[in-house]
Amino acid sequence: MVVVMKKNATDEEVARVLSKIETLGLNAHLSRGKIRTIVGVVGDNSGIEPSVFESLQGVERVVPLLGPFKLASRDFKSEDTVFPIDGRQIGGKTIIVMAGPCAVESKEQIIQTALAVKKAGATVLRGGAFKPRTSPYSFQGLGEEGLKLLALARDVAGLAVVTEVMTPELVPLVAQYADILQVGARNMQNFALLHAVGESHKPVLLKRGLMSTIAEFLNAAEYILSHNNPRVILCERGIRTFETYTRNTLDITAIPVIKSLSHLPIIVDPSHATGRREFVCAVSRAAIAAGADGLIVEVHPDPENALSDGAQSLRPPEFEAFMEDLKKVAHAMGREI
Amino acid sequence: MVVVMKKNATDEEVARVLSKIETLGLNAHLSRGKIRTIVGVVGDNSGIEPSVFESLQGVERVVPLLGPFKLASRDFKSEDTVFPIDGRQIGGKTIIVMAGPCAVESKEQIIQTALAVKKAGATVLRGGAFKPRTSPYSFQGLGEEGLKLLALARDVAGLAVVTEVMTPELVPLVAQYADILQVGARNMQNFALLHAVGESHKPVLLKRGLMSTIAEFLNAAEYILSHNNPRVILCERGIRTFETYTRNTLDITAIPVIKSLSHLPIIVDPSHATGRREFVCAVSRAAIAAGADGLIVEVHPDPENALSDGAQSLRPPEFEAFMEDLKKVAHAMGREI
Amino acid sequence: MVVVMKKNATDEEVARVLSKIETLGLNAHLSRGKIRTIVGVVGDNSGIEPSVFESLQGVERVVPLLGPFKLASRDFKSEDTVFPIDGRQIGGKTIIVMAGPCAVESKEQIIQTALAVKKAGATVLRGGAFKPRTSPYSFQGLGEEGLKLLALARDVAGLAVVTEVMTPELVPLVAQYADILQVGARNMQNFALLHAVGESHKPVLLKRGLMSTIAEFLNAAEYILSHNNPRVILCERGIRTFETYTRNTLDITAIPVIKSLSHLPIIVDPSHATGRREFVCAVSRAAIAAGADGLIVEVHPDPENALSDGAQSLRPPEFEAFMEDLKKVAHAMGREI
Amino acid sequence: MVVVMKKNATDEEVARVLSKIETLGLNAHLSRGKIRTIVGVVGDNSGIEPSVFESLQGVERVVPLLGPFKLASRDFKSEDTVFPIDGRQIGGKTIIVMAGPCAVESKEQIIQTALAVKKAGATVLRGGAFKPRTSPYSFQGLGEEGLKLLALARDVAGLAVVTEVMTPELVPLVAQYADILQVGARNMQNFALLHAVGESHKPVLLKRGLMSTIAEFLNAAEYILSHNNPRVILCERGIRTFETYTRNTLDITAIPVIKSLSHLPIIVDPSHATGRREFVCAVSRAAIAAGADGLIVEVHPDPENALSDGAQSLRPPEFEAFMEDLKKVAHAMGREI
Repeated sequence: MVVVMKKNATDEEVARVLSKIETLGLNAHLSRGKIRTIVGVVGDNSGIEPSVFESLQGVERVVPLLGPFKLASRDFKSEDTVFPIDGRQIGGKTIIVMAGPCAVESKEQIIQTALAVKKAGATVLRGGAFKPRTSPYSFQGLGEEGLKLLALARDVAGLAVVTEVMTPELVPLVAQYADILQVGARNMQNFALLHAVGESHKPVLLKRGLMSTIAEFLNAAEYILSHNNPRVILCERGIRTFETYTRNTLDITAIPVIKSLSHLPIIVDPSHATGRREFVCAVSRAAIAAGADGLIVEVHPDPENALSDGAQSLRPPEFEAFMEDLKKVAHAMGREI
Repeated sequence: MVVVMKKNATDEEVARVLSKIETLGLNAHLSRGKIRTIVGVVGDNSGIEPSVFESLQGVERVVPLLGPFKLASRDFKSEDTVFPIDGRQIGGKTIIVMAGPCAVESKEQIIQTALAVKKAGATVLRGGAFKPRTSPYSFQGLGEEGLKLLALARDVAGLAVVTEVMTPELVPLVAQYADILQVGARNMQNFALLHAVGESHKPVLLKRGLMSTIAEFLNAAEYILSHNNPRVILCERGIRTFETYTRNTLDITAIPVIKSLSHLPIIVDPSHATGRREFVCAVSRAAIAAGADGLIVEVHPDPENALSDGAQSLRPPEFEAFMEDLKKVAHAMGREI
Repeated sequence: MVVVMKKNATDEEVARVLSKIETLGLNAHLSRGKIRTIVGVVGDNSGIEPSVFESLQGVERVVPLLGPFKLASRDFKSEDTVFPIDGRQIGGKTIIVMAGPCAVESKEQIIQTALAVKKAGATVLRGGAFKPRTSPYSFQGLGEEGLKLLALARDVAGLAVVTEVMTPELVPLVAQYADILQVGARNMQNFALLHAVGESHKPVLLKRGLMSTIAEFLNAAEYILSHNNPRVILCERGIRTFETYTRNTLDITAIPVIKSLSHLPIIVDPSHATGRREFVCAVSRAAIAAGADGLIVEVHPDPENALSDGAQSLRPPEFEAFMEDLKKVAHAMGREI
Repeated sequence: MVVVMKKNATDEEVARVLSKIETLGLNAHLSRGKIRTIVGVVGDNSGIEPSVFESLQGVERVVPLLGPFKLASRDFKSEDTVFPIDGRQIGGKTIIVMAGPCAVESKEQIIQTALAVKKAGATVLRGGAFKPRTSPYSFQGLGEEGLKLLALARDVAGLAVVTEVMTPELVPLVAQYADILQVGARNMQNFALLHAVGESHKPVLLKRGLMSTIAEFLNAAEYILSHNNPRVILCERGIRTFETYTRNTLDITAIPVIKSLSHLPIIVDPSHATGRREFVCAVSRAAIAAGADGLIVEVHPDPENALSDGAQSLRPPEFEAFMEDLKKVAHAMGREI
């Protein structure tokens, strides 16, 4: 952290900053210029927020250097985190594709989808049993019944299952049925939930909040890792910007940025990022070309009658073509699907 | 809702849209132009999301007309919602000021602050016992001990207490000590929490998410109202934009906009919106002038040693001057503090 | 400027940064920590961009401390800039109101409006003769004919005139007719235009770009000031954010922020910021309460038939009520209209 | 366009909307529901802005359906626009790479760069002679001298030249030396400049404004096309969002979106989009995989001493590796470099 003093800061004010740094068990490096004084704060300052210094008189600005995240950083662990999902390694040479409907709607729907995505090469079945909805009057998911159907489809098709968990108290229930616990974008800073999935020791798919910076995203992962649960998969799913033509704006650059800052695997959700089926394929290819470790894609056997998000769901034959298309880019990247 | 068909949409595709509308128990109004066809969807479509139609073939775009919120809207209830907080009416002629530290730190700190803000004219004491923090290593609040200190300070100073609750399971505990339950910006779409505070039948202070639209904000309020809990206070606290000079960008226009769309009282948090003490006074005056029903302001007896957010906290004498300053604008608006 | 070296930066890389600083005629202050090294750059670094250092090997990040603006800053000139506009002082105790239609449409329209706004207390008549339009097929203004009508209306009503100039070569023509040259939001970084209005030595109304930071805004003013033209009026008119309910998001906090950074007067355009007549009054009161020195408001005698922006224009009787409303807030602020 | 009436709109208000539509030579399609009335506006409404209707009483909202652009749209011209640049076709099977320094600094620098990028496979040399700079005190480019050096380098290396033109009056001068005129992001809505480059009948590289929507971008292209100049190349170069880790946020989805809306070729500027050399390669691969027709990349023989933007410039050997890397993705897409 760098503390920048105001132009007219007094010696006393500088002294108070230095003493504050000492109190916190850190070291100060003073740089006194003609116009202004700068104080470098050195030591392990994870957990110390800039506001601790911003509140001191004579301070103009505090510049944080490192995100406070530690376990999530490449500085802490330089080699990529790789772990198996249903027999395949995520974070390694293989591109992992997760696919399925937005919401589990019926036994038929989920089994039909599971078989179709398995056949086309997916490794993981996605499907929501508990759905976060903007309006209290929208379909909220089938709940535990949905979890049971997911487990059934997994067994029938031979896939792992990822599904969203929305509250800490539901973690044990969802963990009974799912192979990967998903924390949704709206819950990225639901800290009680992050603690709970951390404690579950299940693999976690953590989606970036649509209003969250990369630093906040990695700090959210840190909450999970700090429970000694290293199996975290990050997911970029688009951020909210002024552009409204697509539902969100996929932050493609976040992929190489996060690869440089962290050792965790990262996948992309092209369906929520674009909100429209017709753009899913192009941005998925882009994600692989940018270095993503996988994708999570919405597939529905009958999008026109889907209870949610039909507009962004691929039909099974479209998903097959999509997988063929992806393979070429994956091979160009020296990877496999 | 208006469904806009693609230029080359076939009769069959239009027919499928019409039949979908019927299935949902709604009425269609067809407008067939030379270039394209438009279908108006009429009836109670709360809870029906645009994606239901977007997924149909031949559909170019769906334009939602009303937010799906109902109980929160002025259409539903035209007169302002007014209810008492500690003997004063919020939503009426009086401007309610809530003040106190970001976090409860000690008995001394909270009692000293409570007495100071009471003396200067505040009605409600704010203070966090459970703190949402970006990093798991930051100070997370005193927990139940903090709640007890808040209750003690309330009794000593004669104020109501507002404090944040972060998870559904903590609602009963927090409700024991607090007069108003606060749902923080990061939890604005934590739907389980919204249900829980709705069921508590306590007054709720709902903060706008820092990247939430006004429609999402009112839908979040709808979750609470739908539990037959009408005592919701909205709080604009700044949104996230490209401008980084201040912590967030206060959306001042949201005040008259929300007043036109909803009957609920709305207050402003100038401390989080600006992040800097020196701008708190100017934006608070602006909030009152724009029609806000109150303010929630951070006050700390010793900001330089605050455990969080010191940079944006007023000192007690500054708060006194602040209240004097506000009075003039309040009177110009025909209101009282 | 502060140059932050990478964790593993070599001594050689640090040496190269130091030598670069020297080459530029500046002084370096080295702060070497256990983990990383920080170099403070001291001296007059206006005009030196962070990228000069960012490109050096071993550099992680460069933190600019001051905007490079100088003449526009309070450090350069501590007292407020005040100058007369049609006999009244802008930047002083008086709130200056500029009002008129979006575009000059006819002699009747502009004279009728001029008389109405004069009567209600406006000091300056606004009206576009050259209109920047998103589409080449939209009405582009009456051109020189519009300027003549503005000048006529000025003489009839006794007001100053502000109107937009869109290209450097039009500056002499527009300067013949206008008392204040307006640089529109889309042209805030049209540097050739900034030079030209600077050289004109006319008062300039500079609108903030809808995508511009406060630092960029003040740097744009610097272009004008650097031509020895001190009569610059800044205008906050809303920025572009994810919120689409209103046309733009008025950045109310920019007012006290700019007042703290710069000595220049600043006014607010509530019409473009909100895009809707019904919110103009509330945000104008807020602007005055936040410390703005004036307003520029759209008024049209017949908004339903306006050629542009009718939805945000007040009718003359609405404008009269608006002025009455503002007076109360102005008086609460110790100012006059 | 769809005009949505307020719930309580009177018959008279509806009638006024209908008569307005008629006045404009368009047709109305009335859809009267129990709750509200919707009016579809049919006919050629290019150039008619929503505000024409928004200003009418009883109107709640106007929904524009088509951007007003016409010549730029796929509806107008369904097949891709392809035209030759220095013997290669842009918009066709070949990926066109434009490369060179941010600014022309010296004869040596530009010739050395030209030879290096030619050797590695670039088709076009980029380099700024007139530089738009945030601060008036920054290096503003070599001016005409820079243009001459570019022309010299073109002849020596055998490349086409693209360079920025900042004002209408400079168009003839720049057109003498350049093969492609570049309109920079800050000038995307400098309409006088758009007219001038349109009239020049030179190929134009039009950069997206950093806070411009896709619709505004295509409308800016429309200005150029409307002068019967069909050779427009669009360039996505990142938009401004809340994320500050990278300079801008590359809107990767804009590529397939624009390909669906328009027939014009589109390229990507990974250097300005990311601001950092280390991410240029990954996002360039992503751009190709998303369907871009080319790239414009900053290359500098000595980035550490570049006068601007060194941090984002590739060194010649890095550029060679970059081209090799791109080829694989291009081939996977069935394209050539």
